[in-house]
Amino acid sequence: MRILIIGATGTIGRAVVAALAAGNEIIGASRKSEAAPVDIADPGSIQAMYRRVGKVDAIVCAAGQAKFSPLTQLSDADFRFCLDNKLMGQVNVVRFGLEHVADRGSITVTSGILARSPMSGSGAISLVNAGLEGFVRAAALEAPRGIRVNVVSPPWVRETLIALKMDPSDGLPADAVARSYTRSVNGTETGLTMEPSK
Amino acid sequence: MRILIIGATGTIGRAVVAALAAGNEIIGASRKSEAAPVDIADPGSIQAMYRRVGKVDAIVCAAGQAKFSPLTQLSDADFRFCLDNKLMGQVNVVRFGLEHVADRGSITVTSGILARSPMSGSGAISLVNAGLEGFVRAAALEAPRGIRVNVVSPPWVRETLIALKMDPSDGLPADAVARSYTRSVNGTETGLTMEPSK
Repeated sequence: MRILIIGATGTIGRAVVAALAAGNEIIGASRKSEAAPVDIADPGSIQAMYRRVGKVDAIVCAAGQAKFSPLTQLSDADFRFCLDNKLMGQVNVVRFGLEHVADRGSITVTSGILARSPMSGSGAISLVNAGLEGFVRAAALEAPRGIRVNVVSPPWVRETLIALKMDPSDGLPADAVARSYTRSVNGTETGLTMEPSK
Repeated sequence: MRILIIGATGTIGRAVVAALAAGNEIIGASRKSEAAPVDIADPGSIQAMYRRVGKVDAIVCAAGQAKFSPLTQLSDADFRFCLDNKLMGQVNVVRFGLEHVADRGSITVTSGILARSPMSGSGAISLVNAGLEGFVRAAALEAPRGIRVNVVSPPWVRETLIALKMDPSDGLPADAVARSYTRSVNGTETGLTMEPSK
């Protein structure tokens, strides 16, 4: 398969690249990629990436920023940033990607556990993650030519907790998270929110 | 109680007004209201409404527009409209409303069944409804002074189906939907997505 991985240099993206590398052609997209530079907050940048990359069998997006902050400190601009980036960025990866995916191909995007299990400070992130999951459930119903659309909702990732100097013991290693992406790419399911676990 | 009902002239809003009228002071807000005019897509308009209305014990919002359309026909501007209106409009009703609600008061907003049970054409609406539910779960954790925050996720409303000339037999009457709002206003629950049923 020819697989486009957006956010290929991130913690999850690197693990997805490693999990899917054998036997497939991987195109790694990211803000600083030479092969496929993209800023998902910019719809035109997504369109340019797809034109440059051409037809693929699968698209995986593990990119998108959102802001963790107490509710009273989240500004109008903070919400706008989160909506434009992790939410509409990935919605647009799906919308614009449909015509660039081969018949019976797949698109997989990324939400996160705060969609369902919020914590203080997650107001904007919980909104973005839950909204993306709602969108994917609906978009999967309309995807043409047997194309499947899923969203992976990772728990806290072990490597991320270590980078944040938090207790990593409750985190799931990135290579275990990557298994949900390979299941989405190689499987037959569509419209699902996939929740990686041990 | 002093209760502000935003969208008071809509199908659900009228039923909520009727259900809560006895023994309470109701302030009906809507785009054409004289007492409390508001356009929830405009953050400044929400702020002006709150300044005009003053302190309340409960806020109910049954307002907000989103567009039902095939995914390939939803434009960037359509998504922006839905995000600004039903999603961020109600997020801002909560964010700005917290300081205008009395101790142990409540804020109740409105999503809809397409959050979890999508259909072809519901891409933007499913996004908006699910995103609002994710936001409410998180915001409830940070609401100060014992203020509760819930979201009602109505099924298809019988009166709406009749207005759309669709089969009303599967619809729930608006007065049954309104019971979830009275439960949110009068109860002790918070952070919930309340799903009205028969």
